[in-house]
Amino acid sequence: MKPIDFQTDPSRYRHWRVEIDGEVASLIMDVDQAGSLFDGVELKLNSYDLGVDIELNDAVQRLRFEHPEVRAVVIRSGKDNVFCAGANIRMLGKASHGHKVNFCKFTNETRLAIEDASANSGQLYLAAVKGSCAGGGYELALAADHIMLIDDRRSTVSLPETPLLGVLPGTGGLSRVTDKRKVRRDRADIFCTIEEGLRGAKAVEWRLVDEVVPNSKWDDAVATRARELAARSDRPRDAKGIKLDPIQRRPNGDSIAYAHVGLDVDRGRGRATLTVRSPADAAPPSVAAAHEQGAAFWPLALAREFEDAILHLRANEPEIGLVIFRTEGDAHSVLGYDAVLGEDDWLMREVRHYLKRVFKRIDVTSRSFIALIEPGTCFAGTLAELALAADRSLMLIGTRDGDNRAAAAITLGTANFGFYPMGNGLTRLQTRFLGDDDAIARLKERVGIPLEAEEADELGLVTATVESYDWDDEVRVMLEERASFSPDALTGMEANLRFAGPETMETKIFARLTAWQNWIFQRPNAVGEQGALKLYGSGVQPTFDRTRV
Amino acid sequence: MKPIDFQTDPSRYRHWRVEIDGEVASLIMDVDQAGSLFDGVELKLNSYDLGVDIELNDAVQRLRFEHPEVRAVVIRSGKDNVFCAGANIRMLGKASHGHKVNFCKFTNETRLAIEDASANSGQLYLAAVKGSCAGGGYELALAADHIMLIDDRRSTVSLPETPLLGVLPGTGGLSRVTDKRKVRRDRADIFCTIEEGLRGAKAVEWRLVDEVVPNSKWDDAVATRARELAARSDRPRDAKGIKLDPIQRRPNGDSIAYAHVGLDVDRGRGRATLTVRSPADAAPPSVAAAHEQGAAFWPLALAREFEDAILHLRANEPEIGLVIFRTEGDAHSVLGYDAVLGEDDWLMREVRHYLKRVFKRIDVTSRSFIALIEPGTCFAGTLAELALAADRSLMLIGTRDGDNRAAAAITLGTANFGFYPMGNGLTRLQTRFLGDDDAIARLKERVGIPLEAEEADELGLVTATVESYDWDDEVRVMLEERASFSPDALTGMEANLRFAGPETMETKIFARLTAWQNWIFQRPNAVGEQGALKLYGSGVQPTFDRTRV
Repeated sequence: MKPIDFQTDPSRYRHWRVEIDGEVASLIMDVDQAGSLFDGVELKLNSYDLGVDIELNDAVQRLRFEHPEVRAVVIRSGKDNVFCAGANIRMLGKASHGHKVNFCKFTNETRLAIEDASANSGQLYLAAVKGSCAGGGYELALAADHIMLIDDRRSTVSLPETPLLGVLPGTGGLSRVTDKRKVRRDRADIFCTIEEGLRGAKAVEWRLVDEVVPNSKWDDAVATRARELAARSDRPRDAKGIKLDPIQRRPNGDSIAYAHVGLDVDRGRGRATLTVRSPADAAPPSVAAAHEQGAAFWPLALAREFEDAILHLRANEPEIGLVIFRTEGDAHSVLGYDAVLGEDDWLMREVRHYLKRVFKRIDVTSRSFIALIEPGTCFAGTLAELALAADRSLMLIGTRDGDNRAAAAITLGTANFGFYPMGNGLTRLQTRFLGDDDAIARLKERVGIPLEAEEADELGLVTATVESYDWDDEVRVMLEERASFSPDALTGMEANLRFAGPETMETKIFARLTAWQNWIFQRPNAVGEQGALKLYGSGVQPTFDRTRV
Repeated sequence: MKPIDFQTDPSRYRHWRVEIDGEVASLIMDVDQAGSLFDGVELKLNSYDLGVDIELNDAVQRLRFEHPEVRAVVIRSGKDNVFCAGANIRMLGKASHGHKVNFCKFTNETRLAIEDASANSGQLYLAAVKGSCAGGGYELALAADHIMLIDDRRSTVSLPETPLLGVLPGTGGLSRVTDKRKVRRDRADIFCTIEEGLRGAKAVEWRLVDEVVPNSKWDDAVATRARELAARSDRPRDAKGIKLDPIQRRPNGDSIAYAHVGLDVDRGRGRATLTVRSPADAAPPSVAAAHEQGAAFWPLALAREFEDAILHLRANEPEIGLVIFRTEGDAHSVLGYDAVLGEDDWLMREVRHYLKRVFKRIDVTSRSFIALIEPGTCFAGTLAELALAADRSLMLIGTRDGDNRAAAAITLGTANFGFYPMGNGLTRLQTRFLGDDDAIARLKERVGIPLEAEEADELGLVTATVESYDWDDEVRVMLEERASFSPDALTGMEANLRFAGPETMETKIFARLTAWQNWIFQRPNAVGEQGALKLYGSGVQPTFDRTRV
């Protein structure tokens, strides 16, 4: 399989079309069946693989940044008779366990990005379901604020994963049915076990869709609902979008150099270093000036580059289990950008939420993250969030001999107190100091003050502080030790320790639902030679080990 | 392996001693290394298997019912130098996946029962840790309200599962460290990766234990803390305990007949029927009279028998994937007992919380549950909870030809509005009608009124209603269809659909933590020939597939 590239743009889409009509955009799914990432897989009936979802993710993102005028988005199918058949089963049958898990993770993040656009960006989503809408297709519809189903006696919604494939509707399906749509548990149980799905009044009564509309009134009804959704939006009427130009990315052997981010892979040691550089220039003097910078505005460029690096590691470097976060540059400059970023402005809001989503990707990435805080680093404000997202942070005490840079410091900013909530609804500081409001209050008093090792340690911001003469050894031992542990145990451990406290529908999707799905994806009843996922479409019935575990 | 029996009593204990000194009880773990359920496994160093935990569960239970005078419970070790080495690793290496999962589930329930005793029964637990306390041993300590660690330079607490075994501290360890003890995530990360654990002041500073006590002051300090905990108890000073006599249980081929419960296994069809009979007599006229009945008091006898049947199914009938709930008898009599059960009395409180725990066992049991509500059944109050705990309920409309019993009805009681919260903190009705307070209010108005099929359906209390002439076919088709699905997919699906809404530490243990652990328990890195769990103690280092999933 070729390396997976998460960068695309509308000129390269094979599976989606974006049509914009004033305040309403249509996202039209029209999958090119010859366009799978997998050789020999045909993406029939608007079924999808990761490549299709990469385009969707890009489209959702661009609508937010490039089209402030768009206040409602209608997801439609470009095919007759089928809305979307869900994830392609042949692809799932062929894919490695790791690819399946990564694929589900990314599609989950894309569905959540749609909900984030609705909740925080004033782009409300409408799923206009015409034709059969099965499995992942219905899970896509579930991400919308409003689901319309045409009443043509053929179109249905369904989650047939359990009866047909022996797996779960794992892209949020079960969680959204119970927690978002609030379908009664016994009805959900029936719905998730009938291959043929539901339609008509019953689909409405069971809360699976919001309305069914006769064929004759369909187009008008969709247009009307889209306008109604648009009316609820708080997006500005007269703003100008910014173009998301291609990011700068230069692969060089095992490394990738971006404008503000560097990724260096050390394959022999199974680790990578992600270095973020502070802005080269001072922050723009105003929001208007930030708009002028467009995609070059440092926080936005950072979000895009960092996201690309993380996604690349996940998909293309599965044996790199350990990622070191470094920063380079000037804390003042970062905090200056944060000040602009915090302004009340539609674009600044978009960038904040984008960075929030990028940091959330770290939280659900199954790699160990270690932040190294040394002289010359700039873990301040938005970049301090990297230290807080890491599983551990090590901080060098004072300075190094022969290095005339100032002692390492970490500097909290307002960004750390609300710009970037985790999926559990808390900031990383709140999660770190779970239930301890006093600790948060103490930290707030230190905003903007560079905290050197002793103080950062006292305040609980770093895992450990290390004398300069011990630094190299301590770091080496820690990294080597980490690399010696079972990768699976680390994945499970990190998935637990990162999420202290409350759960939300979002975190339930990654914990309760995804963890069970991953388990099922390992089970012979799904993926064995006689398993349901393996045999799907072969005409041969699966043979199950009937043991209930 | 012989069938596992969940019934025991102190006269048969091989691994625990209970010593009672006034208001303080000691639970002394002194595992008989020759007493494993597994041939060839030696339970060295106070390591445990399911048999050890069955005794602990029994002891915790009896303290609540038989010893109202006990207000604090000290968990101690009967061995020198070791508190508890955790789950026995040889046992885990030998056990089937299903046994491992069941073992973890039961031990998790026992730890939660300890916390339930503290929270709801006025028996507060103290872990007096002297000697090394590793893995499941520390997880046991984590269930206590207060953890004391002796400062003897040898005694430590540790969670070495990840570095030593390539698995998780899956008996609540990770969840309690982050959510109960509120250990900072990066410290938890370190703690869970160091084999040797922590001791002394650092263990206190990191919140892993509440205090460390010098050897010389140990006995006094433990006694003092136990008295302090006892002082916080609300247990009555002058109450008389009731003896938990052996339950009546007559195995008969594939069936088991209890006094009020019948379990009939249909091995060919992979299903079982659990029938609960209403009390034979009217409820006792007073709480005092209920005390007189002791363990024969119907709700208590029901709890014990039903629990035994569920645990038996889990452990000894893994291929029975489908369980039908039936009731027989008289709704009035059930509601009469519920009225006594609702009284403000220490014993009634115990029985309510016991039934709550039994119903919670259903929620986390990986079998499909179907309630059949027909003429002659008595799904009322406490027994209506069975219909609400089921994945589906089918209700027969009206009566059957030639059957002169009244039409089937379901009758809500006060019991359904608060006696039996689920692990998520909500009642089953609140979970069923998530966020819909009006629905709950409407249902409250119907308390005590027999609701026949049409009304029960309208109120959303049953999954479907069926005409008598369709009943047999409908039931047969539904059961056969259910039995045709992948058992694993059903397990995952049910684990999701049963828990709409909020999560608590308790539900996180069964979802986030357990689901990840189950996944790891399937992975070659743990259980393969070169896996860490398999090779532990062999002197051979495990070989890991370094792919991060």
